[in-house]
Amino acid sequence: MRIAVDVMGGDHGCGVVIEGVKRALQTEKRITALYLVGDRSEIHAALPQRGFRDHRVHVVHASEVLTMTDKPAAALRKKKDCSIARAVELVHDGKVDAVISPGNTGGIFAAATFKLGRIPGVDRGCIATVIPTPDHEFVLLDAGANIECKPLHLAHYAVMGSIYSREILGYQNPRVGILSIGTEETKGNELTLGAFKLCKLLDLNFIGNVEGHDLFRNRVDVVVCDGFVGNIVLKTCESLALAMFSMLKRELTANPRRQLGALLAQNAFRTIKRRMDPEGFGGAPLLGFNGTVMKAHGSARERAIANAIHITTENIQHQVNQIIANEIARANERLIADETVAAIVLSQN
Amino acid sequence: MRIAVDVMGGDHGCGVVIEGVKRALQTEKRITALYLVGDRSEIHAALPQRGFRDHRVHVVHASEVLTMTDKPAAALRKKKDCSIARAVELVHDGKVDAVISPGNTGGIFAAATFKLGRIPGVDRGCIATVIPTPDHEFVLLDAGANIECKPLHLAHYAVMGSIYSREILGYQNPRVGILSIGTEETKGNELTLGAFKLCKLLDLNFIGNVEGHDLFRNRVDVVVCDGFVGNIVLKTCESLALAMFSMLKRELTANPRRQLGALLAQNAFRTIKRRMDPEGFGGAPLLGFNGTVMKAHGSARERAIANAIHITTENIQHQVNQIIANEIARANERLIADETVAAIVLSQN
Repeated sequence: MRIAVDVMGGDHGCGVVIEGVKRALQTEKRITALYLVGDRSEIHAALPQRGFRDHRVHVVHASEVLTMTDKPAAALRKKKDCSIARAVELVHDGKVDAVISPGNTGGIFAAATFKLGRIPGVDRGCIATVIPTPDHEFVLLDAGANIECKPLHLAHYAVMGSIYSREILGYQNPRVGILSIGTEETKGNELTLGAFKLCKLLDLNFIGNVEGHDLFRNRVDVVVCDGFVGNIVLKTCESLALAMFSMLKRELTANPRRQLGALLAQNAFRTIKRRMDPEGFGGAPLLGFNGTVMKAHGSARERAIANAIHITTENIQHQVNQIIANEIARANERLIADETVAAIVLSQN
Repeated sequence: MRIAVDVMGGDHGCGVVIEGVKRALQTEKRITALYLVGDRSEIHAALPQRGFRDHRVHVVHASEVLTMTDKPAAALRKKKDCSIARAVELVHDGKVDAVISPGNTGGIFAAATFKLGRIPGVDRGCIATVIPTPDHEFVLLDAGANIECKPLHLAHYAVMGSIYSREILGYQNPRVGILSIGTEETKGNELTLGAFKLCKLLDLNFIGNVEGHDLFRNRVDVVVCDGFVGNIVLKTCESLALAMFSMLKRELTANPRRQLGALLAQNAFRTIKRRMDPEGFGGAPLLGFNGTVMKAHGSARERAIANAIHITTENIQHQVNQIIANEIARANERLIADETVAAIVLSQN
């Protein structure tokens, strides 16, 4: 496997990303070539600093970076030599099998859209995030790429999320639900009501609508929503989990008695933190594109980058994109075969 | 103050609600009359069982109940003698100053809409929920009443939420934000982009867009969104907090060493649980109606009912509805004075 890593654009600089790459390569023997894409001099300074020598590593220079505040589409046009564009081009040119970037999400999405294009039959790509719960993980998609969605987009997300859950998380028959405000088919907004009609027709373990209440109770494995809702849900969960951890820390260090108690029970807290840590997955795949593209968290540190690389190799190994192409084609055939639904879908496009 | 409590329709039966009323009356001397609305025989059986005698208590019979699965508007038409309808009628007839119900949210909202009507100038009512964070509380509105919103609705929610935060939570100059997917004015969907333009013109401490990340970091006091997003956020937070508490419990009881640690640190957990407990507020007000209407959680137990009654007396004391009427009128004047905005608002209605 050959992977390109955009080492620029993360919050902690290229050194942290390179250290993550180093760790991943130590265990990941399936990788035969790894391209570090970014500022040549920064990379060449970071490599020896970290004692990183590996014959699989190559450097691809890019003189520019998309910053977190850049407007994606416009900045991509302007900064032609930016690292994310160069890295995605390596996928397009067949030089690597996948690309990973901790940079500007919109920029990665725009680069994938413009330079790779979508898998035939997929109307919109999306970002899928794995969210840990005490007893399992669920895939949330779209996590923020596509703000104004149509029912067909959600139906495609259901198919792609189901594949991702099966191939990468190992759920045999993932339960797919539409995130809404009541479990009945009649509850929801125009978008979710339409998506419900489409999902019913697909070859999925579709369990109908799910509510916010269901997310952390091991009731659903794939949670489908538009990118506006998904982004808010994802960030709200991160914010609340973080707040509860920091409150726990504050309270447990408030006096010596509690400190002793916390010391005795420290493995309990470690387990919880490890279990609920979003960095455990490290990467959120962009699904629906002609190429494997993984978004790492902007604040990803070494371990998260290493995990993102690991998840990326799993994506390649399991041929997620080929499966998506096949199953989306089958799904579209089913939808078009239903006259009422076909009319709805066509009228929206 | 005179308050009506719909004792039917909660998950735990009328006895639990009546016990909550009993507790509230023990401390709440401002209440001069309290009407228990529901099945007469059930109420008369529950009162002596709980040793509840108070000269302020009156019973108003209602032979029917809106269940959680009833379709609100249709059921209200059919079940003319249901407890929520009877209780809201007491407000309408001027016999009480406020009503509290733990029943079907849609039913309470429909009863308020049909029987009380909206405060002049308010285009849509909403449900406001107080969400606790480690360091403060924020008001989230709409929490699920109004699924398809227009920018003007969100602007009105901003005004009403600001008043509620100031009068009931005691924030002097509450920070009002629109829940979106980026802090820049240009980030969001059609609804939030429009609402941003309107909120800028209002006499509010409007801090612009907030993201999911900001919710539990003490950055915003009033979070404005449509009822679809609000309901999902509210239930997701409840679900995640509950999952983390139960995971903590499971891990802390896993072996004797951890159990001892947990015992030593138990006050830390108590503090966190008390702090993050949604029952602490007990009631979510319906804002924008000609009358004070408080929704208690369907699963509310005695303490939550008592808290809902306490919050309701605060609403009456602070004349929240009168302030809303005045400030909404002022807000509408400001919006209409801006020609561009007036054109947008009018074109949407």
